[in-house]
Amino acid sequence: MNIKEKIREDINSKKDEYIQFLQKIIQQPSTSGNELEAQTIVADRLRDLGLDVDVWTPDAEELKKSEFFNPRREDYEGSPNVVGTLKGKQNGKSLILNGHIDVVPAGDESKWINEPYSGTVIDGKLYGRGTTDMKGGNMSTLIALETIINLGIELKGDVIYESVIEEETGGAGTLAAIQRGYKADVALIPEPSEMKIFPKQQGSLWFEVTVEGVSAHGGTRYEGVNAIEKGWVVFQEIMNLEEQRNEPLREHPLYKNNPIPIPINIGQFNGGYFPSAVPEEAIIQGRYGIAPGETIEEAKEQFQSMLDNLKSLDNWFEKHPATVKWGGIHLPPGGCEDDHPMLEILQNNYLEVEKEEAVMAGSTWATDGGLLTQAGGIPSIVFGPGTTSMAHFTDEYVELEKMFKTAEITALSIIEWCEINE
Amino acid sequence: MNIKEKIREDINSKKDEYIQFLQKIIQQPSTSGNELEAQTIVADRLRDLGLDVDVWTPDAEELKKSEFFNPRREDYEGSPNVVGTLKGKQNGKSLILNGHIDVVPAGDESKWINEPYSGTVIDGKLYGRGTTDMKGGNMSTLIALETIINLGIELKGDVIYESVIEEETGGAGTLAAIQRGYKADVALIPEPSEMKIFPKQQGSLWFEVTVEGVSAHGGTRYEGVNAIEKGWVVFQEIMNLEEQRNEPLREHPLYKNNPIPIPINIGQFNGGYFPSAVPEEAIIQGRYGIAPGETIEEAKEQFQSMLDNLKSLDNWFEKHPATVKWGGIHLPPGGCEDDHPMLEILQNNYLEVEKEEAVMAGSTWATDGGLLTQAGGIPSIVFGPGTTSMAHFTDEYVELEKMFKTAEITALSIIEWCEINE
Repeated sequence: MNIKEKIREDINSKKDEYIQFLQKIIQQPSTSGNELEAQTIVADRLRDLGLDVDVWTPDAEELKKSEFFNPRREDYEGSPNVVGTLKGKQNGKSLILNGHIDVVPAGDESKWINEPYSGTVIDGKLYGRGTTDMKGGNMSTLIALETIINLGIELKGDVIYESVIEEETGGAGTLAAIQRGYKADVALIPEPSEMKIFPKQQGSLWFEVTVEGVSAHGGTRYEGVNAIEKGWVVFQEIMNLEEQRNEPLREHPLYKNNPIPIPINIGQFNGGYFPSAVPEEAIIQGRYGIAPGETIEEAKEQFQSMLDNLKSLDNWFEKHPATVKWGGIHLPPGGCEDDHPMLEILQNNYLEVEKEEAVMAGSTWATDGGLLTQAGGIPSIVFGPGTTSMAHFTDEYVELEKMFKTAEITALSIIEWCEINE
Repeated sequence: MNIKEKIREDINSKKDEYIQFLQKIIQQPSTSGNELEAQTIVADRLRDLGLDVDVWTPDAEELKKSEFFNPRREDYEGSPNVVGTLKGKQNGKSLILNGHIDVVPAGDESKWINEPYSGTVIDGKLYGRGTTDMKGGNMSTLIALETIINLGIELKGDVIYESVIEEETGGAGTLAAIQRGYKADVALIPEPSEMKIFPKQQGSLWFEVTVEGVSAHGGTRYEGVNAIEKGWVVFQEIMNLEEQRNEPLREHPLYKNNPIPIPINIGQFNGGYFPSAVPEEAIIQGRYGIAPGETIEEAKEQFQSMLDNLKSLDNWFEKHPATVKWGGIHLPPGGCEDDHPMLEILQNNYLEVEKEEAVMAGSTWATDGGLLTQAGGIPSIVFGPGTTSMAHFTDEYVELEKMFKTAEITALSIIEWCEINE
């Protein structure tokens, strides 16, 4: 039996145990601030595998020193990061397996067919908050690592398994791991790409634009200036900016099948406080997609110059400029070079296991890959088993067969990248 | 000394006492639900004048029988209506003096120069919440009535003095007085018209339009339909409806100096709940001015047919019609015939006292006059001393000299209308 067959057989023989372990992890509702139990279970498992395990609480003061930090909490007590390292036997190429343990809230629990943290398996799908985003993905990389260890394979390079906190709320966990010194030659992130390979991941910023009006009584509304009408001018210009920013990506090989590669989504528009008064303020909030290769600063400057230009369309904005605040999600874009050798490794192993060509694409959402790439200088590739559309949704699930196939492809790719120490 | 001189002299001799009484009324913060103390003071004063005084709590069950009722409270405990009647000696023409005792909340009290319920007098202005809207107006009609009584003048027709609750929140007090049987040949309402005479008063409805979209993730926003964009289509059509509805009033003698006689004010626009999700709903709220002579039903039908027509502009609305709910303020328009004899009486007495022609106009806001006219069948005229722009504002005041002049004009008009019983 060759190594490929051994890997497949080992995974196949342990599926039930892996499913049980994933259920145990899903049953921990590890929303932001509540990651301790899930992280303790992960750390214990990594220790049992014989890895060097590092468990620490990210330090808000240290994080604040990074320009990439987006403060969402005063401290991270009760929310440890966990990193397990499988040391390579020689100075081979190293690899990070990065995944976040935090999950978004379950929303209206009564809408779930099963309880949100049940881990119920039906027809090959394991249900629960975080299954697709991204505990099922984390499980696939853990299985890959365990299989290599189970089979007694020694690697030349290090494999660093990161179970981080706070991706959903801005990336403090991954940033803390970078600051702690965890670096590698490439990072794999098993976010829900539906087993597509994403060599590029867009970034994402949240914006809040304030538009002024002048209040007046509704019965004499002509004495005021309706901030909603001025807000609509801004809305349209934001949409024009989206058009302009997407133009260069239309022919991009990874994005050409995507109608809007880096969308600007206006998700909230709130103006006025009383039916019978002229609104004196409108607030426009949204999500600003950042192109791979673009810096956050460049993207912000483009947005600001769109706002500065409003006065040429409507001289109201001359004395009442629309202003922007950046807050909430604040993730840079990530990725690797187009010819990064890990891409070919993943593609070949995908073909080996799935008997068809892998789909290469660019992500429509931001991941911790942006921090790994921009703050850590680590090329990042997203490749995971989850179903994109189920992320953050009711009745979220992961397809177990995709999880095991991802594990197999990942195991093969790790040994190719880090190389076997014969 | 003729009767005109006696009236003026009597008012002038008692100014200090009237100011003290108004201060006492202003010092009662008679917001909706808290009218009892102020009403008790008014009722005692009317009893001291020798009027037949009726104090009762409006009955919500009885009010519900009227199509004009706009339920805002479950019951009216602690919020009595007060009506004092000065019976005429013969079957002469009768008159209602209608004013509301309720005031809107003071808002941020720290912004007031004086405390909001101080009643402080500075440079001929009496300050406090409710001074202009409309306790100062109520005082002017009370002074008129007291002066007639003080001078021993007997009238042929009844004068009915109504101090009602709940105008600011929909008119339950005046509706209850109509239901209790208080009718007259004309009603004067001393709302803050700045001593202009308003033979017509527009009505006002609050609307809430719901516009649908389709939610999606912000990163794949092209899979959704942004309710904010659809809401903007509705916004523009509402503004077109305003244009269309105001066209016939452009040459109206009472409204020709008003840029938008019956405005539609869009006071709130709220769409979406999350920056990175496509908004699936937008809510547009506003205030719909109703033309004098128009019924509420006619106005609602016109609005509905604007909504029905949206599908001809954007076929999205074919399967996702925008819907309207009517709530909050719900006051019909009021007024009297153009040649109502009370108008001439008021104009002549205005000229007599002020030595210049009265300004005739149409109100830019709704009053209880709409209920008196449409629910009670009583021609209604607004004529009061308050400053329109101070209503509902910080540092609200009434100019005392205008209050006394209004009282004088009102007293002269009452004896002309109800006629002296020689």
